Amino acid sequence: MGAIITLTTDLGLTDAYVAAMKGVILGINPEAGIIDICHSIQPQNIAQAAFVLSTAYPFFPRRTIHVVVVDPGVGTKRRAIILRTPSADFVAPDNGVLSYVIQEFSAKPAEGSITFQQRELEPGVEAVAITKPQFWRTPVSPTFHGRDIFAPVAALLSLGFPPIDFGEAISSVTMLPLPRPYQALDGSLVGHILHIDGFGNLITNIRSDNLPQTEQAVTIEVGNQLIPGLSCTYAEGSGLLAIIGSSGYLEIAVKGGSAHALLDAKVGDEVRIKQQSGGSR
Amino acid sequence: MGAIITLTTDLGLTDAYVAAMKGVILGINPEAGIIDICHSIQPQNIAQAAFVLSTAYPFFPRRTIHVVVVDPGVGTKRRAIILRTPSADFVAPDNGVLSYVIQEFSAKPAEGSITFQQRELEPGVEAVAITKPQFWRTPVSPTFHGRDIFAPVAALLSLGFPPIDFGEAISSVTMLPLPRPYQALDGSLVGHILHIDGFGNLITNIRSDNLPQTEQAVTIEVGNQLIPGLSCTYAEGSGLLAIIGSSGYLEIAVKGGSAHALLDAKVGDEVRIKQQSGGSR
Amino acid sequence: MGAIITLTTDLGLTDAYVAAMKGVILGINPEAGIIDICHSIQPQNIAQAAFVLSTAYPFFPRRTIHVVVVDPGVGTKRRAIILRTPSADFVAPDNGVLSYVIQEFSAKPAEGSITFQQRELEPGVEAVAITKPQFWRTPVSPTFHGRDIFAPVAALLSLGFPPIDFGEAISSVTMLPLPRPYQALDGSLVGHILHIDGFGNLITNIRSDNLPQTEQAVTIEVGNQLIPGLSCTYAEGSGLLAIIGSSGYLEIAVKGGSAHALLDAKVGDEVRIKQQSGGSR
Repeated sequence: MGAIITLTTDLGLTDAYVAAMKGVILGINPEAGIIDICHSIQPQNIAQAAFVLSTAYPFFPRRTIHVVVVDPGVGTKRRAIILRTPSADFVAPDNGVLSYVIQEFSAKPAEGSITFQQRELEPGVEAVAITKPQFWRTPVSPTFHGRDIFAPVAALLSLGFPPIDFGEAISSVTMLPLPRPYQALDGSLVGHILHIDGFGNLITNIRSDNLPQTEQAVTIEVGNQLIPGLSCTYAEGSGLLAIIGSSGYLEIAVKGGSAHALLDAKVGDEVRIKQQSGGSR
Repeated sequence: MGAIITLTTDLGLTDAYVAAMKGVILGINPEAGIIDICHSIQPQNIAQAAFVLSTAYPFFPRRTIHVVVVDPGVGTKRRAIILRTPSADFVAPDNGVLSYVIQEFSAKPAEGSITFQQRELEPGVEAVAITKPQFWRTPVSPTFHGRDIFAPVAALLSLGFPPIDFGEAISSVTMLPLPRPYQALDGSLVGHILHIDGFGNLITNIRSDNLPQTEQAVTIEVGNQLIPGLSCTYAEGSGLLAIIGSSGYLEIAVKGGSAHALLDAKVGDEVRIKQQSGGSR
Repeated sequence: MGAIITLTTDLGLTDAYVAAMKGVILGINPEAGIIDICHSIQPQNIAQAAFVLSTAYPFFPRRTIHVVVVDPGVGTKRRAIILRTPSADFVAPDNGVLSYVIQEFSAKPAEGSITFQQRELEPGVEAVAITKPQFWRTPVSPTFHGRDIFAPVAALLSLGFPPIDFGEAISSVTMLPLPRPYQALDGSLVGHILHIDGFGNLITNIRSDNLPQTEQAVTIEVGNQLIPGLSCTYAEGSGLLAIIGSSGYLEIAVKGGSAHALLDAKVGDEVRIKQQSGGSR
């Protein structure tokens, strides 16, 4: 297999939109290996796309090209960009779908702002606004830049064309405000549900290094339920459990069931971590 | 990657039927690159398969081999065919799933007939009825020709075997009556919904070159709703909008929502285009 | 394409878990061809995974590597194994997901036991418990061995590493009790529904060679319905029909519809075959 190109989209599996993108890519680079990351992002859900991409891209070989097509502003003046980091390339609308990548490589970390923001990038990270139409399919459909702009750009990148060939260098890119856990007045750590996966696991924005580093046990509060302590596997105990999941985030699960169904939780809901009372060592 | 073979089926994603076909193909041509077009065609919905295929095959490299397995007559006397056009090969039951391809290459264009019809092909287009069992898997399951006939035939075509090796040349193939827009007595253009995509966009059979070529604005009527004029992007305005979609058809969409959910429309419903009153230039 | 690695999981299509596994595999063997068998196994449904895999693996080329990740015991002491048969390799938890493979290659056939059981293997079949961590991704997530253990092991197998490099030889593996058809006192053959496919076909554990070898017609009883005789194609007759499906099992179908919807049947329900009364030749 030649270069690897991944696709993350909200184009779904009931139409041929994704296949049209693959056809375009293979017409330009027949040696490209195309890997689907996910095509079931909820329509136009930028935050979900950003999160799902973040759980996969670190596991791909260096110099993989990741294309994201979740693009409610397609055809408008929103920018399309190439982001080249030391490990990979990304081709996407500049609407926040690359937020987790940008967080990893941005010059100043996010400060919990609740508005969209432009973020400057570290030295060594290159961003290019895709503006030169000579490599695009013509005519460009105003409704499907994935096929007519992103696919040919990604295919040409995979052949070795440098990003700057496709437009102009830019110094900042758009980042979503990623919600961060914070310390409440009562000392508990307050996080939020970032994503609900296909098993119904509730994945929060609390990472293992946010948790108290004492050996004191914690209690996790979600919905109106209390979960005593962390489990190490989904098979432990019974009922609700809290566990550090495979991407390093605290998640709420149910042994052999769905925490989503049990708790009727939704993305954005609060999860609280409390040190168990009476327990100083 | 060697030759490209695409698959369009109603076999779904909850079973291993598609994988069995891929295994058979790779057993014959390990270098074949297999690309999924769509496996979520509604069971036995030939018209939907024909449409979905038509939105993808033009974007694949020359000499791609497209296999379609939407085959309610599997095991009966319905023919299986290879259709070789100047740009690609198709392997499918002769039940209408290739109607849009045939329309492009047939000697006489469709005339709005409402019955199935045999269609003669242009010079340069070759059709072969697949009748020679020596290349099939044995025993052939009467319920899964996709695996036992179409997959090995496609794999062998990808190795360079000529179509005629698999059967007898035929001069006509089966085409569905594709509904065409027509002019009503009041001067409006009447089309129909061809397909509802995963975003809930209603894709009609009205193409941009069917629309009035004046600069006079049009009004689009669908359900009991009136849409004033065409939009250029999904992000324009609010509520219902009409737009020329990525395959060149007029479609009805909703900004940030689903036209299908809003209008409760279904495939076959009428869409009318009216020139706005009082507006001569 | 280099070696072929297939994936059968319950990881679903709405997350990036499967993609992370593919990234890991391609990081180790960029030439691997990765084929999806199914990712829509019901969460933690080992029996369904075992069946679905059994309908695909026989169709893949020799030396294909089949990875199965349906793993409710992930992170516990359940073993992970490599099973090398004369035709293929399998990498999976030792929880019964390979039951149909083991049945094919086990020294003593199953006897209808209703408990989990250890099964000895034929000479020529090699089983290895995966115990050596040096080839695993570190740190291993206790919740996702698919990505951190199975994917790298499969990728290294595809590069030619022998199974024994990954752990210790074992002589028996875990098999589910596979329900077998039996003869009832009234002479009828009693089987069960093994699987309901995406078309709503009810696939039973009755194989064509279990059926009476006379030419006497049979009647099939399912739910409270009687089906007279076997059909050869899905297009025959009308309403309910019984047919030998593409994997050799008797299945109950409905022409142009879903037997599942019509009969409200579920996996495990009985299906009875009766020789038609009064019919000796």
